[in-house]
Amino acid sequence: MGRWEPGARERLAEAALELFDERGYEATTVADIAARAGVTERTFFRHYADKREVLFGDPAEYNAVFTDAVAAAPAEASPLDTAALALRAAGEWFVGRHPYARRRAAVVGAHTALQERELVKQLHLGEAIAAALVARGVPAPAAALTAELTTVAFHQAFTRWVARDEETDLGAIAIGVLDELRALTR
Amino acid sequence: MGRWEPGARERLAEAALELFDERGYEATTVADIAARAGVTERTFFRHYADKREVLFGDPAEYNAVFTDAVAAAPAEASPLDTAALALRAAGEWFVGRHPYARRRAAVVGAHTALQERELVKQLHLGEAIAAALVARGVPAPAAALTAELTTVAFHQAFTRWVARDEETDLGAIAIGVLDELRALTR
Repeated sequence: MGRWEPGARERLAEAALELFDERGYEATTVADIAARAGVTERTFFRHYADKREVLFGDPAEYNAVFTDAVAAAPAEASPLDTAALALRAAGEWFVGRHPYARRRAAVVGAHTALQERELVKQLHLGEAIAAALVARGVPAPAAALTAELTTVAFHQAFTRWVARDEETDLGAIAIGVLDELRALTR
Repeated sequence: MGRWEPGARERLAEAALELFDERGYEATTVADIAARAGVTERTFFRHYADKREVLFGDPAEYNAVFTDAVAAAPAEASPLDTAALALRAAGEWFVGRHPYARRRAAVVGAHTALQERELVKQLHLGEAIAAALVARGVPAPAAALTAELTTVAFHQAFTRWVARDEETDLGAIAIGVLDELRALTR
């Protein structure tokens, strides 16, 4: 993954998205994806373990968007306030990514193998958020539940966000979902 | 699935659980599972599409435990009260199933392929609960969120329940988790 291949990772993700959409996930090979991206198969495997991974970016980087916000929250923030800050940070991260996210969501939703992988990534995101909350001194059961509320709010907000033709403020939608959760549990 | 094979479904699930535990999921074949259960491979495939399905029972039957409770809730019950009734019903359904559930959870948690399938089943359960709430007149966004809260509460409660050596009241644990969610969002 040297400097001589700028954007190979992103080109591979774009190529895979196009091919999964055109031919379906099963009918697309790693060789097809590499060829469309203009790289070798060897380069593909330097970036991704298999074709199932190619739409999922770097989970450590993605999870850090949420967990860094949790770690940076003021000491006096409640678990739910901390969740709100993580949702705002995730909203910021997705600015400008709506067109890709929208196409990606359609392809992932249409293929069980990709949907399964997405759900596991969501589970790991929740675990990472819970660990970040525990590191702030939140007791483990409350941390686990707050992490679940965060991923639920984010998932619901994301679903609404990609359903719209135009990019809107994902963070604001997510905060709105948190408010709806609050109202439901009142 | 005729009357001449009482319990073949359950015997297959038990055989698969034993074999996945002993040899791992990858090293176990459908032929192994069928042999251990004392049935033919053909019988296996009358009950399950593949070896990934064998620990998951009948999702329609399982989801109905929750959705029947939602449908039967008093007309005046709030969405969250309805969720509580579904959690109680699920708790009833699991009475006596703790030893199997505990072993099953350990095997599922140790194999990504099974964990992925479990997460998809949870997603479908949530969708079924949301549909049952919509059928009661709950608006779709509130139904989706209530369904997420229900599956989150159930999942957290289930995790705590199987972590214990002895069977306790799963429904009561789940109601307790709902209360914790309420406190977190206050």
